[in-house]
Amino acid sequence: MIDLKAAIRTIPDYPKPGVMFRDVTTLIGDPRAFRIAIDQMVQPWAGAKIDQVAGTEARGFILGGAVAHQLSVGFVPVRKKGKLPWRTLSEEYELEYGTDTIEIHSDAVREGDRVLLVDDLIATGGTAEASIKLLQRAGATVVGATFIIDLPELGGAKRIEALGVPVSSLVSYEGH
Amino acid sequence: MIDLKAAIRTIPDYPKPGVMFRDVTTLIGDPRAFRIAIDQMVQPWAGAKIDQVAGTEARGFILGGAVAHQLSVGFVPVRKKGKLPWRTLSEEYELEYGTDTIEIHSDAVREGDRVLLVDDLIATGGTAEASIKLLQRAGATVVGATFIIDLPELGGAKRIEALGVPVSSLVSYEGH
Repeated sequence: MIDLKAAIRTIPDYPKPGVMFRDVTTLIGDPRAFRIAIDQMVQPWAGAKIDQVAGTEARGFILGGAVAHQLSVGFVPVRKKGKLPWRTLSEEYELEYGTDTIEIHSDAVREGDRVLLVDDLIATGGTAEASIKLLQRAGATVVGATFIIDLPELGGAKRIEALGVPVSSLVSYEGH
Repeated sequence: MIDLKAAIRTIPDYPKPGVMFRDVTTLIGDPRAFRIAIDQMVQPWAGAKIDQVAGTEARGFILGGAVAHQLSVGFVPVRKKGKLPWRTLSEEYELEYGTDTIEIHSDAVREGDRVLLVDDLIATGGTAEASIKLLQRAGATVVGATFIIDLPELGGAKRIEALGVPVSSLVSYEGH
């Protein structure tokens, strides 16, 4: 059994002092770790009749593209404001300082589509919550959310589960 | 046989008057078209002993993640300046007005790794050329570059092949 944590690089004091940044590019660059991570991200949702995978810009695109391919479904990009070329729905959410806005194409899902949300990491859950609200406004049922890394002290997984969306993750770290 | 062109949305006069924008999000969101596109992107490189797939932020991440997964290899993100958390190599390239800079982690490939570059579209080839130079500086052999869409009038595929890197694409459009 491969140790996925050993494939993740920790960068101390990035992007600011006191933060331990969890860098998944080393995992994604390792053929065995990448394949095992995708398999393990998909496994809890194998029976969930997923119609679409949604992923958040930008690392969620790498993982979400692979998960969608593994499940033989389509992929819905959740992008930063102003990046999508067609009509969009947008959702603002709070950051530590200020706000950010994410968007999906308004026709990205069909009414009733069962969507799995994919990203590399869940911290406070702000981006994930905004993504779920967007997908729901577009008519989707968000069946679950799957991450490589959970930082449980920041409460994101609990916040998402409080919305009625189950969460799975592969590894967790204390602190943030 | 599915018509991949029919799965691509054309948006006239985006992002500016006179440009026909080719929007692949509709293809990526269609389960059959997405799977067939990934299969066709991989097919010319099946015997090429690929070690890593590199993809360009952001749409190249979706396609590159799926292609890497299909080939059971790792994925190397080529990102805009300032987005990667570890030590990087960077390459500046020219845009229509001004310049842009892309980066890879300096340890993203090993000496001699055989890399396939993936993106959604090749137009002038500026981003692809900069990506290839970066990967070569990091020690990789860039075995080929694969795109969904080629805009041949803009000369990108010829420019990349002039670097000794073969190019494949699935559909092409006149004009730009």
